[in-house]
Amino acid sequence: MSNITSKRFFSSSFAISNKYAKYVPASGSYPQGYKVGALKSGVKKNGNLDLSLIISETPANAAAVFTTNKFKAAPVQLSASILKENPTAIKSIVINSGCANAVTGIQGLKDANAIVNAVDSIVSPGATKQSTLCMSTGVIGQTLKMDKILPSLPKLYEEELGSTHEHWLTCAKGIMTTDTFPKLVSKQIEINGFKYTIAGLSKGAGMICPNMATLLGFFVTDAPIEQKALQSILSHAVNRSFNCISVDGDMSTNDTITALANGAAGGELITQQTVESYEAIKEAITDFAQTLSQLVVRDGEGATKFVTIKVKDALSYEDGHKVAKTISNSPLVKTALYGKDANWGRILCAIGYSDVEVNTSKTNVSFVPTDGSAELKLLINGEPEVVDEERASEILEMEDLEIKVELGTGGGVEVDYWTCDLSHEYVSINGDYRS
Amino acid sequence: MSNITSKRFFSSSFAISNKYAKYVPASGSYPQGYKVGALKSGVKKNGNLDLSLIISETPANAAAVFTTNKFKAAPVQLSASILKENPTAIKSIVINSGCANAVTGIQGLKDANAIVNAVDSIVSPGATKQSTLCMSTGVIGQTLKMDKILPSLPKLYEEELGSTHEHWLTCAKGIMTTDTFPKLVSKQIEINGFKYTIAGLSKGAGMICPNMATLLGFFVTDAPIEQKALQSILSHAVNRSFNCISVDGDMSTNDTITALANGAAGGELITQQTVESYEAIKEAITDFAQTLSQLVVRDGEGATKFVTIKVKDALSYEDGHKVAKTISNSPLVKTALYGKDANWGRILCAIGYSDVEVNTSKTNVSFVPTDGSAELKLLINGEPEVVDEERASEILEMEDLEIKVELGTGGGVEVDYWTCDLSHEYVSINGDYRS
Repeated sequence: MSNITSKRFFSSSFAISNKYAKYVPASGSYPQGYKVGALKSGVKKNGNLDLSLIISETPANAAAVFTTNKFKAAPVQLSASILKENPTAIKSIVINSGCANAVTGIQGLKDANAIVNAVDSIVSPGATKQSTLCMSTGVIGQTLKMDKILPSLPKLYEEELGSTHEHWLTCAKGIMTTDTFPKLVSKQIEINGFKYTIAGLSKGAGMICPNMATLLGFFVTDAPIEQKALQSILSHAVNRSFNCISVDGDMSTNDTITALANGAAGGELITQQTVESYEAIKEAITDFAQTLSQLVVRDGEGATKFVTIKVKDALSYEDGHKVAKTISNSPLVKTALYGKDANWGRILCAIGYSDVEVNTSKTNVSFVPTDGSAELKLLINGEPEVVDEERASEILEMEDLEIKVELGTGGGVEVDYWTCDLSHEYVSINGDYRS
Repeated sequence: MSNITSKRFFSSSFAISNKYAKYVPASGSYPQGYKVGALKSGVKKNGNLDLSLIISETPANAAAVFTTNKFKAAPVQLSASILKENPTAIKSIVINSGCANAVTGIQGLKDANAIVNAVDSIVSPGATKQSTLCMSTGVIGQTLKMDKILPSLPKLYEEELGSTHEHWLTCAKGIMTTDTFPKLVSKQIEINGFKYTIAGLSKGAGMICPNMATLLGFFVTDAPIEQKALQSILSHAVNRSFNCISVDGDMSTNDTITALANGAAGGELITQQTVESYEAIKEAITDFAQTLSQLVVRDGEGATKFVTIKVKDALSYEDGHKVAKTISNSPLVKTALYGKDANWGRILCAIGYSDVEVNTSKTNVSFVPTDGSAELKLLINGEPEVVDEERASEILEMEDLEIKVELGTGGGVEVDYWTCDLSHEYVSINGDYRS
């Protein structure tokens, strides 16, 4: 089966651009007790992979965070309710790409339920509670092609699932929409002498089906993490990763990050009371989530730059986050970055309207190059520097860049945030007609 | 003098594009007791008009609203303090374009003071209080070319001021930066048998010096409005006009709207107690402010569309405003409008993350064409319509469009907001190097 999957991978109609090849792993270690895969159900007009399935061989503790958009997509509403009813025995996650099943009214909920029930009947026949989380990503306002999806589920389960690197990569490709490369990360950590593995997938915004900036993410691990601890770790990790990225500031109707922990690797149950192991795995998962979320920014629609916004000396985490987010979403900052223009006045302007406490006579702003060379100071204690434009151009030529902002409040809180530029390509992608 | 000005106008290096010619008035009625004008001081590299002056022949009641950006430009800080000290005896407004005098530290405040004092010494020599409001618009983080501005002020006062249509139009041109046409509106109303005239200028964002989205606006009138009443009217009018427009969502360090009322046309003093005349002039000025602010959107950087967002049935004005603003600032909505794509899911998505009360099963969304033909319903009671794509394309081909959103809350509050699309041209304008 590995061979078949591998062949499909290399003969795929989807080609990873050279620019991004370095972000796609050639191998990986994957957690025990999971099988994953994807196939082409026919939902996508271009015939690409569009239906992915992750199953845990034993019931897993599950946690999730969902979009706060008021128009929650049907799969978001349903998954939230399933997670509430059955948080300690989730068996599967099913994801379709190409159609978001959002703003689809009553029909949308019926369809999402039909998919969950179909997966349950295959994966855990006879179970009394729904044990599948479902997710959708794609165009908003269209209903799912159930005639394509339902008949594909048994085939997906029987013929396409496995646990090799190729299976994981295929699964990551199955959730892509406008992404230009699959986003897959795996990592091992050791706690109390046990080796645990975490694998994760995410998707962002790219170039094929220009209708959403839907973000989906998954982590699964074979560590034995109690459900309550898992939800707490996930919330912490997402607050410092997926909630710290921005491509264009539009919050989707479908955003969902899910985590499963099935304990297949053995060891003592990790809870909020086993402080040492809890903190160790929390830190590992947060770091992991940052890596995964940063891939979404790298693949931001039309992005040519990966920019870290480092806000220092905020009064609170919320304040620092707000400043970083405001800078990240400013069209004027983003277009200046695209144009490689050291137009730092726009950064100051964005800080100024972000509506948080800032000491304007103690504010510092610098460009920090990613090659380890000296930073370029732009503003010191609220007074403008005479900027060496040649040096600024040098730094702005680099693909990766850090903008460091010190708010001078004396609060001392630091926040990292990741964003990209706003290019002609972004406008082309999103201005093109849907079909 | 009229002849000289007229000649300068027609021989200006600035050419109004045909597209916008219809928004530039060929004549107008102007309020009594004001003289206005502009000249080329040499601040702008392209040699265009860059220094404007408005004087009231008698001391005027003045009111203003300023940006809430924390990094307030020097002229904003100074004008706010002058207005506080001397609100009932303002004589002049001086405006330079091409340099915002923002984030310029201590030097910036010294320069702004020097300009105000220079104008005062010419216009009201011997006065004990500063009586000039000053404004700047242009690049952030650069200091003013005082060697160009100071020597130009006497010449501007002695040779360039007047009260003809050409003087007003020249004055409007003097405050332009990236604007592609001057924004000038005049209007007459009758109250208690007296004829009062209002004239106003504004500027927005355009194409020459791509460094800011600074918004400046002025109204002057010969009606006798008490200072307190004037401030109240101005706040009301700005909340429903300049605070209801968006080009790109970046709030400038320099945004300022000022109003002068010198009473030169005679009649009874208008106060909040003279209810009938107060309401009449409040309504007239609000309507006037809407016209003036809409010109800024029409001339939005790279804009190809003028879009009215009409939000109905909100729980409060603040809620409706927030929804309209969120839709207006969504890059995905703006690029879909540019691409003439009836991608209404993006509108719903923006409503959903605007963080206000909405009844998702009672929400309606329509495109309303501006030619008087029937609206196109997209969503009824939260359920998607099967959209006639041909009819949608017809409506989206039009330069003007209304998006009507009914939130279904039962609150009944209505808000109008005006915005434009996001085009390749916007990215080009703002990605280009400053010089």
